[in-house]
Amino acid sequence: MENITDYETVSLDTERGALAIIDQTKLPGSFEILYLTKQEDIHRAIRTLQVRGAPAIGVAAAIGLYLAALEIDSDVYEVFYGKFKAASDYLASSRPTAVNLFWALRRMEEAASRNSDLPVPRIKELLRAEAVSIHDEDIRVCRAIGEHGLSLIKDGDGILTHCNAGQLATVKYGTALAPIYLGREKGYNFRVFTDETRPLLQGSRLSSLEMSSIGADTTVICDSMASSVMKNGWVQAVFVGCDRLAANGDACNKIGTSGLAIIAKHYGVPFYVCAPTSTIDISARSGADIVIEERPPEEVTEMWFKERMAPEGVKVYNPAFDCAENTLVTAVITEHGVIRPPFGEKLAELCSRQEK
Amino acid sequence: MENITDYETVSLDTERGALAIIDQTKLPGSFEILYLTKQEDIHRAIRTLQVRGAPAIGVAAAIGLYLAALEIDSDVYEVFYGKFKAASDYLASSRPTAVNLFWALRRMEEAASRNSDLPVPRIKELLRAEAVSIHDEDIRVCRAIGEHGLSLIKDGDGILTHCNAGQLATVKYGTALAPIYLGREKGYNFRVFTDETRPLLQGSRLSSLEMSSIGADTTVICDSMASSVMKNGWVQAVFVGCDRLAANGDACNKIGTSGLAIIAKHYGVPFYVCAPTSTIDISARSGADIVIEERPPEEVTEMWFKERMAPEGVKVYNPAFDCAENTLVTAVITEHGVIRPPFGEKLAELCSRQEK
Repeated sequence: MENITDYETVSLDTERGALAIIDQTKLPGSFEILYLTKQEDIHRAIRTLQVRGAPAIGVAAAIGLYLAALEIDSDVYEVFYGKFKAASDYLASSRPTAVNLFWALRRMEEAASRNSDLPVPRIKELLRAEAVSIHDEDIRVCRAIGEHGLSLIKDGDGILTHCNAGQLATVKYGTALAPIYLGREKGYNFRVFTDETRPLLQGSRLSSLEMSSIGADTTVICDSMASSVMKNGWVQAVFVGCDRLAANGDACNKIGTSGLAIIAKHYGVPFYVCAPTSTIDISARSGADIVIEERPPEEVTEMWFKERMAPEGVKVYNPAFDCAENTLVTAVITEHGVIRPPFGEKLAELCSRQEK
Repeated sequence: MENITDYETVSLDTERGALAIIDQTKLPGSFEILYLTKQEDIHRAIRTLQVRGAPAIGVAAAIGLYLAALEIDSDVYEVFYGKFKAASDYLASSRPTAVNLFWALRRMEEAASRNSDLPVPRIKELLRAEAVSIHDEDIRVCRAIGEHGLSLIKDGDGILTHCNAGQLATVKYGTALAPIYLGREKGYNFRVFTDETRPLLQGSRLSSLEMSSIGADTTVICDSMASSVMKNGWVQAVFVGCDRLAANGDACNKIGTSGLAIIAKHYGVPFYVCAPTSTIDISARSGADIVIEERPPEEVTEMWFKERMAPEGVKVYNPAFDCAENTLVTAVITEHGVIRPPFGEKLAELCSRQEK
């Protein structure tokens, strides 16, 4: 199979005028790149997790919205912007929890609206530049997160991660896995444990694929085994990504993150949340303010299975995310550095710096 | 499909001269009763979890050993006992962690050895009586555990359980689920959450089948969702079974139990371990003395799936059990009542009572 690290997870294919994504629902069995141009296909790709991971969703949405702008045939700004905003709202409805989606779409909207005095063709060029910026920044931001994260661990450490916050959740490097990518570049060896991450198995399907493809010592475990692995003394740090970081440092991330954080604290293992500043939602005072996406019951009872694995008619609760309380988070790692508690003021300061 | 509560999970079929078990690997898709007579088949049934659950394994092994005794054709006691002991050792090698297996086989061995002065045909009759006793006691013991457990909860409570410690882990009623069976008999309503329990899905396949078959409000969740469900305030008590209870109250049970206990403590939810006294291993000073079975990696990466869910060659760690530390256990519930910490002396007292 292709080596996924030779590719970008999400990019603008200029020749085809398409959003290019690695289809993550096919991994690890087969490697396929999808070239999407229609808004419905891009919306579906996000909704069905063909592209997933908070930063990657943001980049995909930005490129998708640029492609939508290209299709608008009016050169009257008000007409153009009305259709453009409708396209943005449509993409925003694909998934509710990861804030980077809304952050990227807002950046695109602002790129249009602050240039409303320019001709529409010129605005389209600026939108293309903005989408490419969001894409390129993601790579730089992830590398920076990796450098800061790497300063917290040492050669030989055991690292446990949940879900996939690696390259496949971003353009390159990832957030939670970026320290491991950068450490490997320096020749460090790590012992990486990837929670399989039910129900969608992003850990066994994606994170373990990334980690084994760069030659890291990789072990898949079921989510329920993290406690045993930590008790065995095999884990020196937990690194997870984040889909939305509340103003107080509550970290909303893939379902299971809150339990993992509680368990890490019990065993005295540091719990690090890796996120670009675009993941901070300063308007959410705490995790309680964050909308948690509930997904279809069939993901739990039948999706990957040969046959249905629960009796017909039984109820299923399938929240896609939960929030690790800020008291459980050892540090938040952004592109600007390592932030330790109390988080409130420091996160607010970061966000205001971002807006300048 | 048949209603499983109309059957016993494991029993001696006297007409067929066979061990009768509900094949749990086929549930919830289809209901099949297996009639086993050969030692190899009984060994495999335990090893492959066609019959599973600490108490049910004990009963199956006792009946299996009785059937082995029937096949021994010598009436010379020493010859008989040599072959009988070899059959017992063979069955003991089927699974390492649940202590009830060894406890039941030892009871059978003692029933033979303390009657060594009787003719072998008479010893075989006594072995049959002993196996039937072990079977019948299991039903009484589980009902008693259910009564004591029921005293700790009230109509309308939310109950979370892990794996299957229901009827399918015993002959009838189960241990952790016995309070719910008995509460339902009194017309109580409970909201039951069953962890799916990766990798073998005993929660979604078996516990949810049992609970929905008696009309309990049943919701399947992934193991990683227990933290969210508790945070939502939906759980008033966690009930789990136990495969081996150490002398200090460390509770060895299905993988995930230790993490669940840590999470329950974090949210202030009582964590109850339900076990017959036959599950107490007074020779294990703590959980550290208990051998944890490791099972094949394919259970995690491919067993139930349409295709392999992890890259080829990646390592898997698949421990079948872990131990909840005694400081996380609110109470142990045996057939003799509810035991609260400190556990040491009280468990020792129970075991010495048992031996009299």
